[in-house]
Amino acid sequence: MSRIAYVNGRYVPHARARVHIEDRGYQFADGVYEVFAVHRGRLIGEKGHMARLDHSLGALKIAWPMSPRALAVVVREAARRNRVENGLVYLQITRGVARRDHAFPKNVSSSLVVTARSSPPLDKQALRQGVGVITIPDIRWKRRDVKSTSLLPNVLGKQQAREAGAYEAWMVDDDGMVTEGTSSNAWIVTKKGELVTRNAGYSILNGITRLAVLEAAAEAGVGFRERPFSVAEGKLAKEAFVTSSTSHVKAVTNIDGRPVGNGRVGELTSRILDLYVDFIEGPGGPRNPGPWN
Amino acid sequence: MSRIAYVNGRYVPHARARVHIEDRGYQFADGVYEVFAVHRGRLIGEKGHMARLDHSLGALKIAWPMSPRALAVVVREAARRNRVENGLVYLQITRGVARRDHAFPKNVSSSLVVTARSSPPLDKQALRQGVGVITIPDIRWKRRDVKSTSLLPNVLGKQQAREAGAYEAWMVDDDGMVTEGTSSNAWIVTKKGELVTRNAGYSILNGITRLAVLEAAAEAGVGFRERPFSVAEGKLAKEAFVTSSTSHVKAVTNIDGRPVGNGRVGELTSRILDLYVDFIEGPGGPRNPGPWN
Repeated sequence: MSRIAYVNGRYVPHARARVHIEDRGYQFADGVYEVFAVHRGRLIGEKGHMARLDHSLGALKIAWPMSPRALAVVVREAARRNRVENGLVYLQITRGVARRDHAFPKNVSSSLVVTARSSPPLDKQALRQGVGVITIPDIRWKRRDVKSTSLLPNVLGKQQAREAGAYEAWMVDDDGMVTEGTSSNAWIVTKKGELVTRNAGYSILNGITRLAVLEAAAEAGVGFRERPFSVAEGKLAKEAFVTSSTSHVKAVTNIDGRPVGNGRVGELTSRILDLYVDFIEGPGGPRNPGPWN
Repeated sequence: MSRIAYVNGRYVPHARARVHIEDRGYQFADGVYEVFAVHRGRLIGEKGHMARLDHSLGALKIAWPMSPRALAVVVREAARRNRVENGLVYLQITRGVARRDHAFPKNVSSSLVVTARSSPPLDKQALRQGVGVITIPDIRWKRRDVKSTSLLPNVLGKQQAREAGAYEAWMVDDDGMVTEGTSSNAWIVTKKGELVTRNAGYSILNGITRLAVLEAAAEAGVGFRERPFSVAEGKLAKEAFVTSSTSHVKAVTNIDGRPVGNGRVGELTSRILDLYVDFIEGPGGPRNPGPWN
């Protein structure tokens, strides 16, 4: 079966899915995106993704290309037409097509592209195989709370990780504190057993999986603290992991070539993964029908 | 006459010029660009633009889509097909089309888009009508020397200027020093009569018009200093102006609503404009045939 993409009002074969060269997404990175996980035929964290999309669009003053309710239909339809039982739906909205000029164009409609693709089902065994991360300077712009397509530093960081044989790069701010991974949030369990991830704000993207883990942890009575942690603290941590819509809860057993704790997947990490899976499969999870359903 | 664009090997009507939705320029801002001014039928600063393009591509490890020599032919051909006597040629190169994944894809060809359009001829009278600038925090990423399409903060800054009734926004770093405009370099003539613009480095894009002005000034024996200047120094300056391939040398007579000097176009600014025009029209200018011609 060949893939189908939604592009500005039409479902078209993926191979022929195109946008205009003066789409501001192409010339200015003037757009935002979301990646929804699909797990066992269900969209995960839809409410959270839609709320964050609204935040991103609002910050950039980009108009919704259609109502959130209609967009939710397109997202589902993209998954359905591509027969995605497990995988992801990618959604991108840009300010639209206009003669090139930095300032916002007038009388332009936002562009909307939605794609979907299958991937292997969530596999706890695989997620419990620890991976390595490297640390690199965070050279991004200062509005990381906006999920914009201005991703060039993330691309360079991920490539650096790949070349170092690592799964992800953790970015470090001018104060030596970890912000997040290039496409995931960063977590540690400190020497004292405290579960820590950076507080939301302009410094990081507030991940939907991050929010789900926080909620699942709270429900299970697992304490946590949202605060910055340093690279040094990360390297002395007992456990570490990353979260994202595509990585779920993935154990990190190595930072800059140095084992985390005893070098094996941590107990709390393992428990968090179980809690997260129960959470997204259960009735009270982040996929809970929201105002847009 | 309808416009013609060059897109990945073909000259196509502008209205139908498209790129794939998984072009990494669209999804990751994983690309670079150049804007060449065309003045009286000649490309301005071609050697400088090509050298900077090589720098940008090298920094991002994006391959040239064709030889620089062949690219120069496409640039000229785009201008010719669109009958541009005065105007600009826009050139964009991205890492190419690949299934979405942050790290560099393998075995992918760079994408190339070239467009051209006419604009009114350089008009000294108009350039001597002073404009206003505002100052805003510089929230961009830290590699401004790379002319990437990761332009979202520039877009937001330019829009902020537009809404304030200003021509441009000067961006200010954490130390209170002006870096540059959202699409131009910033210059002042200090109280003591010193011509100043920020030194090249990671903090700014090294403008081709900036380089031309420096060279023209040197030739004419006009002293200058490349160093950061503060917003306060800018506001106390005798004169100010901006440079870019599309703004040439444009007088700034107002910073944050406060007149620069006596509020009229400065003498040295006016002279620099003359020197610049002589330079680009003369035989020794930045359009001097370089190794790629």
